Amino acid sequence: MKIGLCQMKVCKDKKTNVLHAIDMIEKCIKKGAEIVILPEMFNCPYDNKYFREYSEKIEENKMGRTISTLKQCALKNKVYIIAGSIPEIDEKDRIFNTSVIIDDKGNVLDKHRKVHLFDIDVKGGVRFKESDTLTAGNKCTVVDTKWGKIGLMICYDIRFPELSRKMALKGAKIIFTPAAFNMTTGPSHWETLFKSRALDNQVYMVGVSPARDENSTYVAYGNSLVTNPWGKIISKLEEKENILLVDVSLEYEKEVREQIPVLKHRREEVYNL
Amino acid sequence: MKIGLCQMKVCKDKKTNVLHAIDMIEKCIKKGAEIVILPEMFNCPYDNKYFREYSEKIEENKMGRTISTLKQCALKNKVYIIAGSIPEIDEKDRIFNTSVIIDDKGNVLDKHRKVHLFDIDVKGGVRFKESDTLTAGNKCTVVDTKWGKIGLMICYDIRFPELSRKMALKGAKIIFTPAAFNMTTGPSHWETLFKSRALDNQVYMVGVSPARDENSTYVAYGNSLVTNPWGKIISKLEEKENILLVDVSLEYEKEVREQIPVLKHRREEVYNL
Repeated sequence: MKIGLCQMKVCKDKKTNVLHAIDMIEKCIKKGAEIVILPEMFNCPYDNKYFREYSEKIEENKMGRTISTLKQCALKNKVYIIAGSIPEIDEKDRIFNTSVIIDDKGNVLDKHRKVHLFDIDVKGGVRFKESDTLTAGNKCTVVDTKWGKIGLMICYDIRFPELSRKMALKGAKIIFTPAAFNMTTGPSHWETLFKSRALDNQVYMVGVSPARDENSTYVAYGNSLVTNPWGKIISKLEEKENILLVDVSLEYEKEVREQIPVLKHRREEVYNL
Repeated sequence: MKIGLCQMKVCKDKKTNVLHAIDMIEKCIKKGAEIVILPEMFNCPYDNKYFREYSEKIEENKMGRTISTLKQCALKNKVYIIAGSIPEIDEKDRIFNTSVIIDDKGNVLDKHRKVHLFDIDVKGGVRFKESDTLTAGNKCTVVDTKWGKIGLMICYDIRFPELSRKMALKGAKIIFTPAAFNMTTGPSHWETLFKSRALDNQVYMVGVSPARDENSTYVAYGNSLVTNPWGKIISKLEEKENILLVDVSLEYEKEVREQIPVLKHRREEVYNL
């Protein structure tokens, strides 16, 4: 299974962002990608003041322009697309931070609304409060694909070991995580979180960030990466815009799970509060 | 709170090991340690064939020589001791891998029997099967001390994020982990596990290994360390026998928990299967 990661630079023009995403996806496809992933908020600057303005419907019969365009791209190229995330607006006028997984026939298999809203205030570092504008999702998203089950979560969701553990127990073999860490949390936590979720659950973790843009109000860390079920970073970008093609092996994953069978050694009866 | 870590070299003679432990504890005390921690299996080589022979009772009225000696040391020096681990035998003739926490009056506050037995078989790496000789414990061990609550677990227990999470939710501010990783799992996983448990739960993690002995059947990794609630290694030994004195600040922990309040942001209703 060959995964294409698009660490794209996001600008203020939505249409330009979507066309740019298509362009990067097609570059990945030319290099053999079977599933391509975009970053968190790839059609919109990561800033509370833009989320409502850039938001779109994501419903079967009311599909906004961004996801419609990606559906066509997936169908045309017979490729899976994990549509990073975009601001979604629902019928109750609520805004979510939502990722969508599209199969190689252009169907939306499922969407994931970010479960944990990013409300932090680090002394001398970054302050951000998604809950000023966003509503949280309520589900753990695991989807069947032709390769097996995959999990889907967004950025701050990764800080909660319960969520990735639940995905693994539901059968996820790979967890895709569009994410925009910043220059405070990125250098400190990005690699540790991806390595440990992969190691604990013996899954591949795929993290895709926007490229770093020093001029935006929120400076993304970049460093998109893939960690393997042994907890090792197997491929990584730096901060600039770029694509990354990575092969993952579910055979290797099976091997690791046999060698150190942590998922079988769990003692559920001891953990339950 | 000043913690003393004793990365001691374990030999085949039990009495020598216990005297050596006392000697290292006293070295830590001279440097100001208020709580001292020994490594996993500090009185016995880490090898299934020795566990029964070296095992002792750990009951209030039937206390074996190893823990009795440490109780006297704690009382004499008015210091807390976390007695790494030793093989414990119970009234049903079962053997456990057990750690004991002794307060500064020489009282045993609690004991932790390793909950997850270490049964691994890595291709081209280490094979070990604790369940050949040991019985698993059944509880999550969190103890009240004069500094606040602390958690206690042993080695392979750290691979299960549920256990340290449960400790944090029960109020643990520091988790002590006597552990003997090996030359396969140590270089690959030791630091990631300690960093991530600290980061996820915003606690201090204290890991103490035996010193590396290339001539033993099981070669311990060493690298005893302390990670802070920001997920950073704040102090670390290398492979040789040595002590390490580390100051930890529960004020800093509180600060981190306010800045990125992950423990408050948990979505229990989403995780429950």
